[in-house]
Amino acid sequence: MTAIDLNADLGEGFGRWRLTEDEQLLSVVTSANVACGFHAGDAATMRRVCELAAERGVTIGAQVSYRDLAGFGRRAMEVPSAELAAEVAYQIGALEVFARAAGARVAYVKPHGALYNRVVHDEEQAGAVIDGVLLADAALPVLGLPGSRLLELGRKAGLPTVPEAFADRAYTDEGTLVPRDRDGAVVSDAEAVVQRSVGLARSGVVTAHSGARIQVRARSLCLHGDTPGAVELARRVRARLVAAGVRVEAFA
Amino acid sequence: MTAIDLNADLGEGFGRWRLTEDEQLLSVVTSANVACGFHAGDAATMRRVCELAAERGVTIGAQVSYRDLAGFGRRAMEVPSAELAAEVAYQIGALEVFARAAGARVAYVKPHGALYNRVVHDEEQAGAVIDGVLLADAALPVLGLPGSRLLELGRKAGLPTVPEAFADRAYTDEGTLVPRDRDGAVVSDAEAVVQRSVGLARSGVVTAHSGARIQVRARSLCLHGDTPGAVELARRVRARLVAAGVRVEAFA
Amino acid sequence: MTAIDLNADLGEGFGRWRLTEDEQLLSVVTSANVACGFHAGDAATMRRVCELAAERGVTIGAQVSYRDLAGFGRRAMEVPSAELAAEVAYQIGALEVFARAAGARVAYVKPHGALYNRVVHDEEQAGAVIDGVLLADAALPVLGLPGSRLLELGRKAGLPTVPEAFADRAYTDEGTLVPRDRDGAVVSDAEAVVQRSVGLARSGVVTAHSGARIQVRARSLCLHGDTPGAVELARRVRARLVAAGVRVEAFA
Amino acid sequence: MTAIDLNADLGEGFGRWRLTEDEQLLSVVTSANVACGFHAGDAATMRRVCELAAERGVTIGAQVSYRDLAGFGRRAMEVPSAELAAEVAYQIGALEVFARAAGARVAYVKPHGALYNRVVHDEEQAGAVIDGVLLADAALPVLGLPGSRLLELGRKAGLPTVPEAFADRAYTDEGTLVPRDRDGAVVSDAEAVVQRSVGLARSGVVTAHSGARIQVRARSLCLHGDTPGAVELARRVRARLVAAGVRVEAFA
Repeated sequence: MTAIDLNADLGEGFGRWRLTEDEQLLSVVTSANVACGFHAGDAATMRRVCELAAERGVTIGAQVSYRDLAGFGRRAMEVPSAELAAEVAYQIGALEVFARAAGARVAYVKPHGALYNRVVHDEEQAGAVIDGVLLADAALPVLGLPGSRLLELGRKAGLPTVPEAFADRAYTDEGTLVPRDRDGAVVSDAEAVVQRSVGLARSGVVTAHSGARIQVRARSLCLHGDTPGAVELARRVRARLVAAGVRVEAFA
Repeated sequence: MTAIDLNADLGEGFGRWRLTEDEQLLSVVTSANVACGFHAGDAATMRRVCELAAERGVTIGAQVSYRDLAGFGRRAMEVPSAELAAEVAYQIGALEVFARAAGARVAYVKPHGALYNRVVHDEEQAGAVIDGVLLADAALPVLGLPGSRLLELGRKAGLPTVPEAFADRAYTDEGTLVPRDRDGAVVSDAEAVVQRSVGLARSGVVTAHSGARIQVRARSLCLHGDTPGAVELARRVRARLVAAGVRVEAFA
Repeated sequence: MTAIDLNADLGEGFGRWRLTEDEQLLSVVTSANVACGFHAGDAATMRRVCELAAERGVTIGAQVSYRDLAGFGRRAMEVPSAELAAEVAYQIGALEVFARAAGARVAYVKPHGALYNRVVHDEEQAGAVIDGVLLADAALPVLGLPGSRLLELGRKAGLPTVPEAFADRAYTDEGTLVPRDRDGAVVSDAEAVVQRSVGLARSGVVTAHSGARIQVRARSLCLHGDTPGAVELARRVRARLVAAGVRVEAFA
Repeated sequence: MTAIDLNADLGEGFGRWRLTEDEQLLSVVTSANVACGFHAGDAATMRRVCELAAERGVTIGAQVSYRDLAGFGRRAMEVPSAELAAEVAYQIGALEVFARAAGARVAYVKPHGALYNRVVHDEEQAGAVIDGVLLADAALPVLGLPGSRLLELGRKAGLPTVPEAFADRAYTDEGTLVPRDRDGAVVSDAEAVVQRSVGLARSGVVTAHSGARIQVRARSLCLHGDTPGAVELARRVRARLVAAGVRVEAFA
């Protein structure tokens, strides 16, 4: 029986602003990518999300980002490696306080937004993120795109690496994501997302943008929580995975 | 033989800006109050200061502050208790990563600037700081003014509390600091500062602003590092303490 | 025939986050208090709100605040006068660019949140806000609470001052607002808010918390835009004012 | 008789931190690139620098930057054009308040740091900066590298454009700057800098890194103010320019 993790970004408000349906998503996912204050996530929100996650047995991960509240971490930045590594470690440490206070711990790291995309290909920044993880904890799993520089360098550094897939994103024949600005990059039909989730979880096979059937190795599926209907869709995905005999459980 | 700790604020630059002579001060003090990013202190600086402190055997403390880079943490703020507690914990956690990576740990907490002054009298904010410390570590010493609400509430919460004195500040007959905007609030004569340091360390006695001899209980002396001649003065204080038979050593 | 202005806070998102229903509110109000980046309001949002306001003939005002994104400007701060004055001027200037580019201008200034409350009584901060306004434009109207230090000092400085009332807030017999943490401080019944609006606009008379009828002089009514049903309520208030023969028009 | 402008970055502190010798530099340069709060420059500092500049008859320019205090604007960022344009306009507007209050005006715009380098080649960001300038003032001169996209697009948009040269930077045979990480990129010998300044001002000719004599058209020379000895060097440059019969005067 196959096992799959469901992860989503949580705690992505800041001060007065809210974005994600944290409570509802925490009843669906098995891993919570908690924003750590650099693109979103004030300290009080981080604390609350960790408490809720721990209560529900949801694994807590540090969703690390460029320092960019105004751009929500979606603007790629040329950050010197030493600064980036230190900033990653800083975020992990800040979250760790709240995870521990809730009786849990930070169990993995996942880059956010522009940093996530950058470390797919960028050797230097991928290395800096890994250095930051190592500063914090030399045994901390890293969650990212299969085939990314991030996972490759993480593996070389002795870190557990966890590949994830996106059921609502179109794939190229090479197994990379079709860029968001291309037609058909996002799968918006809910039933299609559900079926792709099941396919990815059971066989690791998904229909690429070209129509070809391709293999995408993933131990986790990323669900989006900031769009209308996101929670409902997440619930459907989880229910159908369970119905299809997939064990929905955290990787960490 | 009496023991006294020497503490100073360190790592109080931010990005391109530098303020404190971190390397030189680390050769004098026994405890380093490291800025944690809210009033000063970027992640790379925090890392470097922790490494230097660990190399020299200087104890690392978290210098926690209001979130106020523009005001350097010197503007009192009405922060709701839950927010303040979480922000204090966040800062401690962030610093802990770098302390641990350097083979050390965060060994105490000291509030900075306007927060330091506020928690002398303000029950609510003092309680919030203590809550923040407890979130991070229920055995973490708190450094502050003797007689302050902060130390009182820390003691009640079971935390070790460490009173400190200021050799370069005038005292009232009640043992509180003469406010900075009063005449004679700051002792600027270097030799006077040195002698007051020795008196405070050996007997806990110091001449108050009125001329009266008063008792000020302190396990640590706070040295200032951001004024011209600060490092030189710190060295003199330390040398004279040693010459007077005082054991200069960290409290933690 | 009486004239009344309807003002509301607008553009109170930041980057990825949205708060106020800017487009819908701009079809109801006559004056837009635009956030200027210190408690909310990124540059692109400021530009867009100014364009929309200018298209609809809504007057643009600078909603100035403490520098506090994390606290949404709701945390009182002890800011030295010279800093506060400069920060107020900075915000007005930043907004002026977008107002002018839209063919309009910044036509008034209104403090936000904790600063608004502070300058009701605090002579020093009220004076600093007025200094900031004078730096920007020595003829700029200031919107605030009748009887506040802000309006008093503004008048002395030769600035036009505009008193405003809150139809959804309870008043004391002295005409000040009942603090938010007291029972009954906020009037939540929509019809009551509508009737109080008409009363305030037509006769300046409103029923105080005690039941007494009191006089509240106001040239503007503040409508809230960040609660569910806010836009609908604002529309009702405006419609009923018009039906009652009140001319709804900007003061500036 | 040739005329040359001398420009330098000023007001590059933030809150407690100082960087540039503002007062001394203002007695040497003819144009002050004033930091506007995004990479450096708090409101009170902006006000003070504008007052000092106006007193001395130094022209005030807006030194606009990416929003990046932690990186001092030296980290290139992928900012969407609409955001970047609005952020540029915001900074110009904020500075304009202080320039006007001092009896002057913002007389030109110069990008800072990573943005300066980016708009040499990047069509999109150069266009966004020009859009931002146009939002603020359709007749505002733009200062930058000759041959840059920024000046080219500025010219097309009808803005006055002002080319500048760097006497302390090595040039390629094509007249572009040798990247800072190459050997010999920076001319550190003071006398060499002085002579290159005179050559650039009188004939627009400078010795390139290869030894070839090349033509660099410039109406302004950029002096650096944040290194030890910078003020002294700036004074020497100015004195020698005057001695060589060059008229040192602002372009605007």
